[in-house]
Amino acid sequence: MNKRSCALVVVGNEILSGKIQDSNAWFAAREFRKAGVALERIAVVPDELDTIADEVRYCAARFDFVITSGGVGPTHDDLTIEGVARAFGRKLTLSEELAAIINQHSAGKPNPARLKMAEIPEGAILNHASDIWFPTVQLDNVYILPGVPQLFEPKLLMLANRFRSDPYFMRAIYTSAGESMIAAHLNDCLAKFPQLMLGSYPKFDDSDYRVKLTLESKDRDYLQRAFDHLMNMLPADAVIRSE
Amino acid sequence: MNKRSCALVVVGNEILSGKIQDSNAWFAAREFRKAGVALERIAVVPDELDTIADEVRYCAARFDFVITSGGVGPTHDDLTIEGVARAFGRKLTLSEELAAIINQHSAGKPNPARLKMAEIPEGAILNHASDIWFPTVQLDNVYILPGVPQLFEPKLLMLANRFRSDPYFMRAIYTSAGESMIAAHLNDCLAKFPQLMLGSYPKFDDSDYRVKLTLESKDRDYLQRAFDHLMNMLPADAVIRSE
Repeated sequence: MNKRSCALVVVGNEILSGKIQDSNAWFAAREFRKAGVALERIAVVPDELDTIADEVRYCAARFDFVITSGGVGPTHDDLTIEGVARAFGRKLTLSEELAAIINQHSAGKPNPARLKMAEIPEGAILNHASDIWFPTVQLDNVYILPGVPQLFEPKLLMLANRFRSDPYFMRAIYTSAGESMIAAHLNDCLAKFPQLMLGSYPKFDDSDYRVKLTLESKDRDYLQRAFDHLMNMLPADAVIRSE
Repeated sequence: MNKRSCALVVVGNEILSGKIQDSNAWFAAREFRKAGVALERIAVVPDELDTIADEVRYCAARFDFVITSGGVGPTHDDLTIEGVARAFGRKLTLSEELAAIINQHSAGKPNPARLKMAEIPEGAILNHASDIWFPTVQLDNVYILPGVPQLFEPKLLMLANRFRSDPYFMRAIYTSAGESMIAAHLNDCLAKFPQLMLGSYPKFDDSDYRVKLTLESKDRDYLQRAFDHLMNMLPADAVIRSE
Protein backbone atom coordinates (compact mmCIF):
# COMPACT_ATOMS: atom_id res chain seq x y z
CA MET A 1 0.00 0.00 0.00
CA ASN A 2 1.22 3.45 -0.87
CA LYS A 3 2.04 5.63 2.11
CA ARG A 4 3.13 9.24 2.12
CA SER A 5 4.43 10.76 5.34
CA CYS A 6 4.46 14.41 6.19
CA ALA A 7 5.14 16.89 9.00
CA LEU A 8 3.64 20.28 9.78
CA VAL A 9 5.75 23.09 11.23
CA VAL A 10 3.63 25.89 12.68
CA VAL A 11 5.58 29.13 13.16
CA GLY A 12 4.29 31.79 15.52
CA ASN A 13 4.80 33.38 18.92
CA GLU A 14 1.10 34.25 18.93
CA ILE A 15 0.22 30.56 19.28
CA LEU A 16 2.84 29.72 21.92
CA SER A 17 1.77 32.73 23.99
CA GLY A 18 -1.88 31.74 23.89
CA LYS A 19 -3.09 34.81 21.98
CA ILE A 20 -4.47 32.79 19.10
CA GLN A 21 -5.70 29.20 18.94
CA ASP A 22 -4.14 27.50 15.96
CA SER A 23 -6.70 25.82 13.73
CA ASN A 24 -4.40 24.92 10.84
CA ALA A 25 -2.97 21.79 12.46
CA TRP A 26 -6.44 20.38 13.15
CA PHE A 27 -7.53 21.22 9.59
CA ALA A 28 -4.40 19.62 8.09
CA ALA A 29 -4.72 16.49 10.26
CA ARG A 30 -8.27 15.80 9.06
CA GLU A 31 -7.67 16.62 5.40
CA PHE A 32 -4.45 14.61 5.14
CA ARG A 33 -6.18 11.63 6.75
CA LYS A 34 -9.01 11.83 4.24
CA ALA A 35 -6.41 11.94 1.47
CA GLY A 36 -4.58 8.88 2.80
CA VAL A 37 -1.51 10.95 3.78
CA ALA A 38 0.18 10.12 7.10
CA LEU A 39 0.74 13.27 9.19
CA GLU A 40 3.43 12.08 11.59
CA ARG A 41 4.54 15.22 13.38
CA ILE A 42 3.33 18.69 14.30
CA ALA A 43 5.73 21.22 15.81
CA VAL A 44 4.92 24.75 16.94
CA VAL A 45 8.04 26.92 17.08
CA PRO A 46 8.65 30.60 17.83
CA ASP A 47 9.59 33.36 15.36
CA GLU A 48 13.31 32.58 15.61
CA LEU A 49 15.44 31.93 12.57
CA ASP A 50 17.63 29.12 13.89
CA THR A 51 14.77 27.34 15.65
CA ILE A 52 12.71 27.35 12.45
CA ALA A 53 15.72 26.13 10.45
CA ASP A 54 16.47 23.31 12.91
CA GLU A 55 12.91 22.02 12.91
CA VAL A 56 12.50 22.22 9.13
CA ARG A 57 15.83 20.45 8.59
CA TYR A 58 14.83 17.69 11.02
CA CYS A 59 11.47 17.16 9.33
CA ALA A 60 12.67 17.46 5.71
CA ALA A 61 15.16 14.64 6.30
CA ARG A 62 12.60 12.29 7.86
CA PHE A 63 9.33 12.75 5.99
CA ASP A 64 8.26 12.69 2.37
CA PHE A 65 7.21 16.31 2.57
CA VAL A 66 6.89 19.17 5.03
CA ILE A 67 4.33 21.98 5.29
CA THR A 68 5.02 25.19 7.14
CA SER A 69 2.25 27.44 8.43
CA GLY A 70 2.75 31.12 9.22
CA GLY A 71 5.62 33.55 9.47
CA VAL A 72 5.17 34.76 5.89
CA GLY A 73 4.85 38.49 5.27
CA PRO A 74 6.68 41.79 5.14
CA THR A 75 7.47 42.42 8.84
CA HIS A 76 10.33 41.59 11.21
CA ASP A 77 8.55 38.54 12.68
CA ASP A 78 8.04 36.89 9.27
CA LEU A 79 11.04 34.59 9.23
CA THR A 80 9.82 31.31 7.80
CA ILE A 81 11.18 31.73 4.27
CA GLU A 82 14.61 32.68 5.54
CA GLY A 83 14.41 29.83 8.09
CA VAL A 84 13.64 27.29 5.36
CA ALA A 85 16.52 28.64 3.27
CA ARG A 86 18.84 28.25 6.25
CA ALA A 87 17.63 24.68 6.83
CA PHE A 88 19.02 23.80 3.38
CA GLY A 89 22.06 26.08 3.53
CA ARG A 90 20.66 28.33 0.79
CA LYS A 91 20.73 32.10 0.43
CA LEU A 92 17.75 34.31 -0.25
CA THR A 93 17.47 35.78 -3.71
CA LEU A 94 15.03 38.24 -5.24
CA SER A 95 12.54 36.49 -7.50
CA GLU A 96 11.75 38.85 -10.38
CA GLU A 97 8.70 36.75 -11.16
CA LEU A 98 7.35 37.03 -7.62
CA ALA A 99 8.19 40.75 -7.42
CA ALA A 100 6.14 41.33 -10.57
CA ILE A 101 3.19 39.36 -9.13
CA ILE A 102 3.34 41.28 -5.85
CA ASN A 103 3.46 44.66 -7.59
CA GLN A 104 0.59 43.68 -9.82
CA HIS A 105 -1.58 42.88 -6.80
CA SER A 106 -0.54 45.78 -4.53
CA ALA A 107 -1.97 49.25 -4.31
CA GLY A 108 0.50 52.13 -4.10
CA LYS A 109 4.19 52.16 -4.88
CA PRO A 110 6.50 49.23 -4.22
CA ASN A 111 8.46 49.67 -1.00
CA PRO A 112 11.32 47.73 0.60
CA ALA A 113 9.02 45.87 3.01
CA ARG A 114 6.83 44.61 0.22
CA LEU A 115 9.84 43.66 -1.85
CA LYS A 116 11.04 41.51 1.08
CA MET A 117 8.15 39.19 0.25
CA ALA A 118 9.65 38.59 -3.20
CA GLU A 119 12.79 37.07 -1.70
CA ILE A 120 12.87 33.29 -1.90
CA PRO A 121 15.54 30.66 -1.23
CA GLU A 122 17.91 29.93 -4.11
CA GLY A 123 16.50 27.00 -6.05
CA ALA A 124 12.94 27.46 -4.77
CA ILE A 125 9.95 26.87 -7.05
CA LEU A 126 6.76 28.94 -7.27
CA ASN A 127 3.58 26.84 -7.36
CA HIS A 128 0.72 28.73 -8.95
CA ALA A 129 -2.99 28.19 -8.46
CA SER A 130 -5.79 30.14 -9.98
CA ASP A 131 -7.76 31.06 -6.87
CA ILE A 132 -5.06 32.60 -4.64
CA TRP A 133 -2.78 35.08 -6.33
CA PHE A 134 0.23 34.56 -4.04
CA PRO A 135 2.04 31.40 -5.19
CA THR A 136 3.21 28.69 -2.78
CA VAL A 137 6.98 28.79 -2.41
CA GLN A 138 8.50 25.30 -2.47
CA LEU A 139 12.10 24.40 -1.63
CA ASP A 140 12.99 20.75 -2.08
CA ASN A 141 10.24 18.85 -0.18
CA VAL A 142 9.11 21.85 1.91
CA TYR A 143 5.99 23.87 1.08
CA ILE A 144 5.67 27.29 2.70
CA LEU A 145 2.06 28.22 3.48
CA PRO A 146 0.65 31.39 5.07
CA GLY A 147 -0.76 31.15 8.58
CA VAL A 148 -4.05 32.97 7.96
CA PRO A 149 -6.63 30.14 7.78
CA GLN A 150 -8.50 31.69 4.83
CA LEU A 151 -5.28 31.33 2.82
CA PHE A 152 -3.81 28.23 4.50
CA GLU A 153 -6.85 26.02 3.99
CA PRO A 154 -7.30 26.22 0.20
CA LYS A 155 -3.54 25.81 -0.27
CA LEU A 156 -3.51 22.82 2.08
CA LEU A 157 -6.37 21.19 0.18
CA MET A 158 -4.42 21.51 -3.06
CA LEU A 159 -1.39 19.81 -1.49
CA ALA A 160 -3.51 17.06 0.10
CA ASN A 161 -4.92 16.38 -3.33
CA ARG A 162 -1.51 16.39 -4.97
CA PHE A 163 -0.13 13.87 -2.46
CA ARG A 164 -3.32 11.80 -2.31
CA SER A 165 -2.51 8.19 -1.51
CA ASP A 166 -4.30 4.89 -0.80
CA PRO A 167 -7.14 5.54 1.66
CA TYR A 168 -7.29 4.48 5.29
CA PHE A 169 -10.12 2.16 6.34
CA MET A 170 -11.42 2.25 9.90
CA ARG A 171 -13.64 0.18 12.19
CA ALA A 172 -14.57 1.04 15.76
CA ILE A 173 -15.62 -0.98 18.81
CA TYR A 174 -17.25 0.58 21.89
CA THR A 175 -16.82 -1.35 25.12
CA SER A 176 -18.38 -1.28 28.56
CA ALA A 177 -15.20 -2.78 30.01
CA GLY A 178 -12.37 -0.51 31.12
CA GLU A 179 -8.94 -0.44 29.49
CA SER A 180 -7.29 -2.62 32.13
CA MET A 181 -9.77 -5.42 31.46
CA ILE A 182 -9.23 -5.53 27.69
CA ALA A 183 -5.54 -4.64 27.43
CA ALA A 184 -4.44 -8.28 27.12
CA HIS A 185 -6.84 -8.84 24.20
CA LEU A 186 -5.50 -5.78 22.43
CA ASN A 187 -1.92 -7.02 22.85
CA ASP A 188 -2.92 -10.42 21.50
CA CYS A 189 -4.61 -8.82 18.48
CA LEU A 190 -1.49 -6.74 17.73
CA ALA A 191 0.72 -9.81 18.06
CA LYS A 192 -1.31 -11.46 15.28
CA PHE A 193 -1.84 -8.28 13.23
CA PRO A 194 1.29 -6.20 13.79
CA GLN A 195 0.48 -3.81 10.92
CA LEU A 196 -2.86 -2.86 12.45
CA MET A 197 -3.21 0.70 13.73
CA LEU A 198 -5.06 0.14 16.99
CA GLY A 199 -6.14 2.98 19.24
CA SER A 200 -7.74 2.72 22.69
CA TYR A 201 -9.50 5.83 24.00
CA PRO A 202 -11.14 5.81 27.44
CA LYS A 203 -14.03 8.16 28.12
CA PHE A 204 -14.44 9.85 31.48
CA ASP A 205 -17.63 11.75 30.78
CA ASP A 206 -21.16 10.35 30.72
CA SER A 207 -20.88 8.51 27.39
CA ASP A 208 -22.66 5.17 27.14
CA TYR A 209 -19.30 3.39 26.72
CA ARG A 210 -16.02 3.31 28.64
CA VAL A 211 -13.52 2.72 25.84
CA LYS A 212 -13.60 3.39 22.11
CA LEU A 213 -11.28 1.16 20.12
CA THR A 214 -10.30 2.25 16.62
CA LEU A 215 -8.84 -0.25 14.14
CA GLU A 216 -7.27 1.13 10.97
CA SER A 217 -5.39 -0.09 7.95
CA LYS A 218 -4.89 0.75 4.31
CA ASP A 219 -5.63 -2.93 3.58
CA ARG A 220 -9.37 -3.50 3.86
CA ASP A 221 -9.15 -7.30 4.10
CA TYR A 222 -6.42 -7.20 6.72
CA LEU A 223 -8.56 -4.76 8.73
CA GLN A 224 -11.57 -7.05 8.50
CA ARG A 225 -9.60 -10.07 9.70
CA ALA A 226 -8.14 -8.11 12.62
CA PHE A 227 -11.58 -6.76 13.50
CA ASP A 228 -13.13 -10.24 13.46
CA HIS A 229 -10.28 -11.61 15.57
CA LEU A 230 -10.64 -8.93 18.22
CA MET A 231 -14.44 -9.18 18.32
CA ASN A 232 -14.14 -12.94 18.84
CA MET A 233 -11.80 -12.47 21.78
CA LEU A 234 -13.65 -9.72 23.61
CA PRO A 235 -16.31 -11.01 26.05
CA ALA A 236 -19.67 -10.58 24.33
CA ASP A 237 -21.10 -8.54 27.19
CA ALA A 238 -18.14 -6.14 27.03
CA VAL A 239 -19.04 -4.89 23.53
CA ILE A 240 -21.76 -2.26 23.37
CA ARG A 241 -21.63 -1.72 19.61
CA SER A 242 -19.30 -1.61 16.65
CA GLU A 243 -19.05 0.43 13.48
CA MET B 1 13.26 39.70 35.25
CA ASN B 2 12.70 36.09 36.07
CA LYS B 3 11.92 33.92 33.07
CA ARG B 4 11.01 30.25 33.04
CA SER B 5 10.95 28.39 29.74
CA CYS B 6 9.03 25.25 29.02
CA ALA B 7 7.99 22.88 26.24
CA LEU B 8 4.91 20.73 25.77
CA VAL B 9 5.11 17.29 24.16
CA VAL B 10 1.70 15.97 23.11
CA VAL B 11 1.68 12.22 22.49
CA GLY B 12 -1.07 10.67 20.42
CA ASN B 13 -1.90 9.15 17.05
CA GLU B 14 -5.50 10.25 17.54
CA ILE B 15 -4.44 13.89 17.19
CA LEU B 16 -2.13 13.39 14.20
CA SER B 17 -4.83 11.39 12.40
CA GLY B 18 -7.44 14.09 12.95
CA LYS B 19 -9.76 11.97 15.10
CA ILE B 20 -9.54 14.32 18.07
CA GLN B 21 -8.77 18.03 18.26
CA ASP B 22 -6.19 18.61 20.95
CA SER B 23 -7.24 21.27 23.44
CA ASN B 24 -4.44 20.79 25.97
CA ALA B 25 -1.86 22.84 24.05
CA TRP B 26 -4.22 25.80 23.79
CA PHE B 27 -5.09 25.51 27.48
CA ALA B 28 -1.41 25.27 28.50
CA ALA B 29 -0.40 28.21 26.28
CA ARG B 30 -2.94 30.54 27.91
CA GLU B 31 -2.35 29.41 31.48
CA PHE B 32 1.45 29.52 31.25
CA ARG B 33 1.25 33.01 29.76
CA LYS B 34 -0.94 34.19 32.63
CA ALA B 35 1.59 32.68 35.05
CA GLY B 36 4.54 34.44 33.37
CA VAL B 37 5.98 31.16 32.08
CA ALA B 38 7.41 31.14 28.52
CA LEU B 39 6.02 28.21 26.51
CA GLU B 40 8.61 27.98 23.73
CA ARG B 41 7.77 24.78 21.91
CA ILE B 42 4.85 22.41 21.29
CA ALA B 43 5.42 19.07 19.56
CA VAL B 44 2.81 16.47 18.68
CA VAL B 45 4.36 13.04 18.19
CA PRO B 46 2.93 9.56 17.51
CA ASP B 47 2.68 6.63 19.93
CA GLU B 48 6.23 5.45 19.17
CA LEU B 49 8.77 4.84 21.87
CA ASP B 50 11.88 6.22 20.17
CA THR B 51 10.09 9.24 18.76
CA ILE B 52 8.75 10.15 22.20
CA ALA B 53 12.20 9.62 23.73
CA ASP B 54 13.93 11.77 21.09
CA GLU B 55 11.53 14.68 21.51
CA VAL B 56 11.58 14.57 25.32
CA ARG B 57 15.39 14.40 25.36
CA TYR B 58 15.59 17.38 22.97
CA CYS B 59 13.21 19.47 25.08
CA ALA B 60 14.56 18.48 28.51
CA ALA B 61 18.03 19.68 27.50
CA ARG B 62 16.84 23.06 26.20
CA PHE B 63 14.04 24.23 28.51
CA ASP B 64 13.64 24.70 32.24
CA PHE B 65 10.91 22.10 32.33
CA VAL B 66 8.86 19.88 30.02
CA ILE B 67 5.24 18.75 30.20
CA THR B 68 3.98 15.68 28.38
CA SER B 69 0.30 15.17 27.56
CA GLY B 70 -1.24 11.79 26.82
CA GLY B 71 -0.04 8.25 26.29
CA VAL B 72 -0.55 7.29 29.94
CA GLY B 73 -2.60 4.21 30.74
CA PRO B 74 -2.68 0.42 30.75
CA THR B 75 -2.82 -0.35 27.00
CA HIS B 76 -0.28 -1.01 24.24
CA ASP B 77 -0.46 2.58 22.92
CA ASP B 78 0.40 4.14 26.29
CA LEU B 79 4.12 4.61 25.84
CA THR B 80 4.92 8.00 27.31
CA ILE B 81 6.33 6.84 30.64
CA GLU B 82 8.64 4.35 28.96
CA GLY B 83 9.54 7.00 26.37
CA VAL B 84 10.52 9.48 29.08
CA ALA B 85 12.59 6.79 30.82
CA ARG B 86 14.38 6.07 27.54
CA ALA B 87 15.05 9.79 27.00
CA PHE B 88 17.13 9.74 30.19
CA GLY B 89 18.56 6.24 29.73
CA ARG B 90 16.61 4.91 32.72
CA LYS B 91 14.83 1.60 33.21
CA LEU B 92 11.26 1.17 34.35
CA THR B 93 10.74 -0.08 37.85
CA LEU B 94 7.61 -1.04 39.78
CA SER B 95 6.69 1.64 42.30
CA GLU B 96 5.22 -0.10 45.35
CA GLU B 97 3.77 3.22 46.45
CA LEU B 98 1.99 3.78 43.13
CA ALA B 99 0.82 0.16 42.95
CA ALA B 100 -0.80 0.57 46.36
CA ILE B 101 -2.54 3.78 45.26
CA ILE B 102 -3.82 2.16 42.06
CA ASN B 103 -5.16 -0.88 43.89
CA GLN B 104 -6.82 1.33 46.46
CA HIS B 105 -8.71 3.21 43.71
CA SER B 106 -9.56 0.26 41.45
CA ALA B 107 -12.54 -2.03 41.54
CA GLY B 108 -11.89 -5.75 41.13
CA LYS B 109 -8.65 -7.65 41.41
CA PRO B 110 -5.27 -6.26 40.34
CA ASN B 111 -4.28 -7.46 36.89
CA PRO B 112 -1.08 -7.16 34.84
CA ALA B 113 -2.43 -4.33 32.69
CA ARG B 114 -3.30 -2.25 35.71
CA LEU B 115 0.04 -3.00 37.32
CA LYS B 116 1.74 -1.64 34.18
CA MET B 117 0.55 1.78 35.31
CA ALA B 118 2.59 1.42 38.50
CA GLU B 119 5.84 1.21 36.53
CA ILE B 120 7.81 4.43 36.59
CA PRO B 121 11.32 5.39 35.47
CA GLU B 122 14.11 4.73 37.99
CA GLY B 123 14.62 7.91 39.99
CA ALA B 124 11.18 9.34 39.21
CA ILE B 125 9.23 11.26 41.85
CA LEU B 126 5.50 11.07 42.56
CA ASN B 127 3.84 14.48 42.99
CA HIS B 128 0.65 14.22 45.01
CA ALA B 129 -2.30 16.58 45.00
CA SER B 130 -5.48 16.22 46.95
CA ASP B 131 -8.05 16.55 44.17
CA ILE B 132 -6.81 13.94 41.66
CA TRP B 133 -5.86 10.59 43.12
CA PHE B 134 -3.35 9.59 40.44
CA PRO B 135 -0.06 11.39 41.21
CA THR B 136 1.98 13.21 38.58
CA VAL B 137 5.10 11.26 37.71
CA GLN B 138 8.17 13.50 37.45
CA LEU B 139 11.58 12.50 36.11
CA ASP B 140 14.23 15.19 36.31
CA ASN B 141 12.57 18.28 34.73
CA VAL B 142 9.84 16.33 32.91
CA TYR B 143 6.26 16.12 34.22
CA ILE B 144 4.06 13.38 32.78
CA LEU B 145 0.40 14.42 32.51
CA PRO B 146 -2.61 12.45 31.24
CA GLY B 147 -4.17 13.48 27.93
CA VAL B 148 -7.79 13.54 29.06
CA PRO B 149 -8.56 17.29 29.48
CA GLN B 150 -10.55 16.77 32.70
CA LEU B 151 -7.34 15.40 34.26
CA PHE B 152 -4.75 17.39 32.28
CA GLU B 153 -6.18 20.80 33.11
CA PRO B 154 -6.14 20.72 36.93
CA LYS B 155 -2.66 19.18 36.88
CA LEU B 156 -1.45 21.84 34.45
CA LEU B 157 -2.83 24.62 36.65
CA MET B 158 -0.89 23.24 39.61
CA LEU B 159 2.33 23.24 37.59
CA ALA B 160 1.69 26.74 36.20
CA ASN B 161 1.29 27.91 39.77
CA ARG B 162 4.41 26.13 40.94
CA PHE B 163 6.52 27.71 38.16
CA ARG B 164 4.80 31.10 38.37
CA SER B 165 7.20 33.85 37.36
CA ASP B 166 7.24 37.62 36.77
CA PRO B 167 4.17 38.57 34.73
CA TYR B 168 4.10 39.69 31.11
CA PHE B 169 2.71 43.15 30.37
CA MET B 170 1.08 43.86 27.02
CA ARG B 171 -0.08 46.85 24.98
CA ALA B 172 -1.77 46.70 21.60
CA ILE B 173 -2.05 49.09 18.64
CA TYR B 174 -4.63 48.66 15.87
CA THR B 175 -3.71 50.23 12.54
CA SER B 176 -5.55 51.08 9.34
CA ALA B 177 -2.27 50.84 7.43
CA GLY B 178 -1.15 47.47 6.04
CA GLU B 179 1.95 45.64 7.21
CA SER B 180 4.12 46.80 4.31
CA MET B 181 3.48 50.44 5.20
CA ILE B 182 4.51 50.12 8.85
CA ALA B 183 7.24 47.47 8.65
CA ALA B 184 10.06 50.05 8.68
CA HIS B 185 8.68 51.65 11.86
CA LEU B 186 8.52 48.25 13.55
CA ASN B 187 12.14 47.55 12.61
CA ASP B 188 13.17 50.95 13.96
CA CYS B 189 11.34 50.28 17.23
CA LEU B 190 13.06 46.90 17.64
CA ALA B 191 16.45 48.44 16.91
CA LYS B 192 15.91 50.80 19.87
CA PHE B 193 14.12 48.24 22.09
CA PRO B 194 15.68 44.88 21.19
CA GLN B 195 14.15 43.12 24.21
CA LEU B 196 10.63 44.05 23.18
CA MET B 197 8.38 41.21 22.08
CA LEU B 198 6.64 42.74 19.08
CA GLY B 199 3.99 40.92 17.10
CA SER B 200 2.31 42.07 13.89
CA TYR B 201 -0.94 40.32 12.94
CA PRO B 202 -2.77 41.28 9.75
CA LYS B 203 -6.52 40.74 9.52
CA PHE B 204 -8.16 39.59 6.31
CA ASP B 205 -11.75 39.53 7.50
CA ASP B 206 -14.05 42.52 7.96
CA SER B 207 -12.47 43.83 11.17
CA ASP B 208 -12.27 47.63 11.53
CA TYR B 209 -8.45 47.45 11.44
CA ARG B 210 -5.85 45.95 9.10
CA VAL B 211 -3.07 45.10 11.53
CA LYS B 212 -2.97 44.42 15.25
CA LEU B 213 0.40 45.10 16.84
CA THR B 214 1.17 43.53 20.23
CA LEU B 215 3.99 44.88 22.40
CA GLU B 216 5.05 42.78 25.38
CA SER B 217 7.67 42.77 28.08
CA LYS B 218 8.15 41.65 31.65
CA ASP B 219 9.49 45.18 32.33
CA ARG B 220 6.55 47.56 32.52
CA ASP B 221 8.62 50.74 32.11
CA TYR B 222 10.54 49.36 29.16
CA LEU B 223 7.22 48.41 27.55
CA GLN B 224 5.82 51.90 28.09
CA ARG B 225 8.88 53.55 26.53
CA ALA B 226 8.75 51.23 23.52
CA PHE B 227 5.01 51.84 23.15
CA ASP B 228 5.46 55.63 23.28
CA HIS B 229 8.31 55.44 20.78
CA LEU B 230 6.28 53.41 18.28
CA MET B 231 3.17 55.54 18.69
CA ASN B 232 5.25 58.66 17.99
CA MET B 233 6.62 57.15 14.79
CA LEU B 234 3.40 55.79 13.32
CA PRO B 235 1.46 58.34 11.22
CA ALA B 236 -1.42 59.60 13.38
CA ASP B 237 -4.04 58.66 10.79
CA ALA B 238 -2.70 55.09 10.65
CA VAL B 239 -3.64 54.35 14.28
CA ILE B 240 -7.27 53.44 14.90
CA ARG B 241 -6.93 52.78 18.62
CA SER B 242 -4.60 51.40 21.25
CA GLU B 243 -4.99 49.40 24.43
